[in-house]
Amino acid sequence: MRKVQTKFFEFKSRRQPLRLRVGGELERFTLAYEMYGRMNSDKSNVILLFHAMTGNQHAAGLNSDVPGLDGRWTEEVHQGWWDGFIGPGKALDTRLFCVICVNYLGGCYGSTGPASLNPATRKPWGPAFPVLRMSDIVDSQMRLLDELGVRQLHAAVGASTGGFLCQLLATRYPERVRIVVPIGTGVETTIQQRIMNFEQVTAIEGDPHFKGGDYYRGPKPDTGLALARRIAHKTFVSLEMLRERAREEIVSHKPPHGWYEMNHPVESYMLHQGDKFVKRFDANTYLRILDAWQWFDLVAEGGAADLHVLFERCRGQEFLVFSMDSDLSFPPAEQSKLVHALKRARVPVMWITVHSDKGHDAFLLEPKLFTPHLQQALGH
Amino acid sequence: MRKVQTKFFEFKSRRQPLRLRVGGELERFTLAYEMYGRMNSDKSNVILLFHAMTGNQHAAGLNSDVPGLDGRWTEEVHQGWWDGFIGPGKALDTRLFCVICVNYLGGCYGSTGPASLNPATRKPWGPAFPVLRMSDIVDSQMRLLDELGVRQLHAAVGASTGGFLCQLLATRYPERVRIVVPIGTGVETTIQQRIMNFEQVTAIEGDPHFKGGDYYRGPKPDTGLALARRIAHKTFVSLEMLRERAREEIVSHKPPHGWYEMNHPVESYMLHQGDKFVKRFDANTYLRILDAWQWFDLVAEGGAADLHVLFERCRGQEFLVFSMDSDLSFPPAEQSKLVHALKRARVPVMWITVHSDKGHDAFLLEPKLFTPHLQQALGH
Repeated sequence: MRKVQTKFFEFKSRRQPLRLRVGGELERFTLAYEMYGRMNSDKSNVILLFHAMTGNQHAAGLNSDVPGLDGRWTEEVHQGWWDGFIGPGKALDTRLFCVICVNYLGGCYGSTGPASLNPATRKPWGPAFPVLRMSDIVDSQMRLLDELGVRQLHAAVGASTGGFLCQLLATRYPERVRIVVPIGTGVETTIQQRIMNFEQVTAIEGDPHFKGGDYYRGPKPDTGLALARRIAHKTFVSLEMLRERAREEIVSHKPPHGWYEMNHPVESYMLHQGDKFVKRFDANTYLRILDAWQWFDLVAEGGAADLHVLFERCRGQEFLVFSMDSDLSFPPAEQSKLVHALKRARVPVMWITVHSDKGHDAFLLEPKLFTPHLQQALGH
Repeated sequence: MRKVQTKFFEFKSRRQPLRLRVGGELERFTLAYEMYGRMNSDKSNVILLFHAMTGNQHAAGLNSDVPGLDGRWTEEVHQGWWDGFIGPGKALDTRLFCVICVNYLGGCYGSTGPASLNPATRKPWGPAFPVLRMSDIVDSQMRLLDELGVRQLHAAVGASTGGFLCQLLATRYPERVRIVVPIGTGVETTIQQRIMNFEQVTAIEGDPHFKGGDYYRGPKPDTGLALARRIAHKTFVSLEMLRERAREEIVSHKPPHGWYEMNHPVESYMLHQGDKFVKRFDANTYLRILDAWQWFDLVAEGGAADLHVLFERCRGQEFLVFSMDSDLSFPPAEQSKLVHALKRARVPVMWITVHSDKGHDAFLLEPKLFTPHLQQALGH
């Protein structure tokens, strides 16, 4: 597998700081990103790929080290999370396109986030890190595109919460993208997502080690973060698959916290998911993304009166929307809302449902289901 | 509303202790129960009603005090939880039948449980309380029926986990019941229930105040128990109803634990559900019932080789099975398994699906949907 390295974009501007939606601004921030394939001479072949909530900039190839992450660059993330989609001849063909993927602002894989040092205090930001909204994450990435001299993206692609970013890019910067590919996402936070996200918020904040987010000098809120991960994880896989995976995968045999004795492989499988996750993720970053998800408001963050007015801006673009039939996290009904709003606004849109028994995670696991339509839409 | 009182059955027998499924035995235990209507002379008109997981013996009328519960008899439980179903002319007609409802062994409303004093140490049992299985709860209630001289029940009725008990009674003691009414329940623990139950187990055990179950002299694990309740609660109501309820009900405005600011009424509604619940329930009892649910094995606890052999014992009974179409906790597919197994074993069974927008909780909230068929089956 090709070896790749994370690059770092250091933004610094007193005159044009990044203004944040809720308030405040950042004069300086770092974005960790990776790039696959080469930009052509007029920089018209760039695809911006948004990772999902707990993903990172490392989408393809092999990257065994990103400096300064306090052990979070675990072996689990060494292989790019979309390696089956990115490369010569693949869905995002690196012989034709230059693919860029950026760790979220607020993230914990090299972009400035709550675990980063606050230049003012030389201590980790912790709870003092500014409140972020999904649109801030998009805006920060536009500064990177400015720096790289990319005026218009060939395409923007994003699944899950990455799909929120994809839609925000298309509606906030309609002139800057031609093809928009939201996968397994939605135009709003559903009541089910809201409830489960809130469970996760309280699982993290209820961990006494969380200390309101100010935990970097002591033990980490691993118990709460692991529980949050387990609450989320069950919505990413199909439950039948989970029953099977639990049998097949190597699982933790660590007993749980106290009195209860586990009685089914799915329990140790779930424990293992939580344990693995806390090694590679920061609780504040997780909480900040949950927060941005809870407050996600495509219309308001796009500065429009309603969804129709918002999407009218996108008439010059082409949308390819993917649904996964077994997706419990973002079920097809959510993409249906998006597609119907696009159609009403007379935006060119193609909607494809792929059938998989892998649930929401199908977008990570089954490149063959997506590749032909991606290639067609991108102009392979 | 009629005033009622909880009675207490004090079991005591060295020669015939209650042998528990996992091991150990109880020579003494108390069961808190209530009784509505009168037993006829041959004691053939008794209906045993099993409450659901967090329910109690107080199913009908008004009971404003049960002694010795350390504040858990909150106003929320003063009205019987099935008052719309039990009384003169109602589904369980107290002019005809004598209805008995018993707090689970291991419970926290007057029956012996982890919060009770261990006679050996004169301190609360806590983690030393014996491990219970669903069949132990049924067996303990048979001792009460023995004491009352009830040889054969006219009917056994139970919803949710109460439906597990109902089926265990029918299969472990086939001669002791004529009519069996499982409502919104199943023949096994589903993968979804297993996962969510396990989340709840770890939410409770992960609370540092839980201390392995030995918390009665200090602060209670309210944070973990409240989170567990919220995780469960979302499966009891339909999500659309929940969105509406959140608008209508009085909700807690207490801010959550830390940094996160709530942004939707459903969040404060959920917080309120958790806060209300921890006032009225004991974390060890909750954990013990979760444990019995995770280990629930109708076939093994019934001592049979398979479901078919098990249900062949029930040919002398009549089953009335209820499904609720919007039930997320025990969806109709689960009752379908029960009904088909009963049919294969040639047990007389009638299966009714009621349509409600109230989800699993419909069995508490909509007596009219159940009453006609209950009356027909019970021989009104």
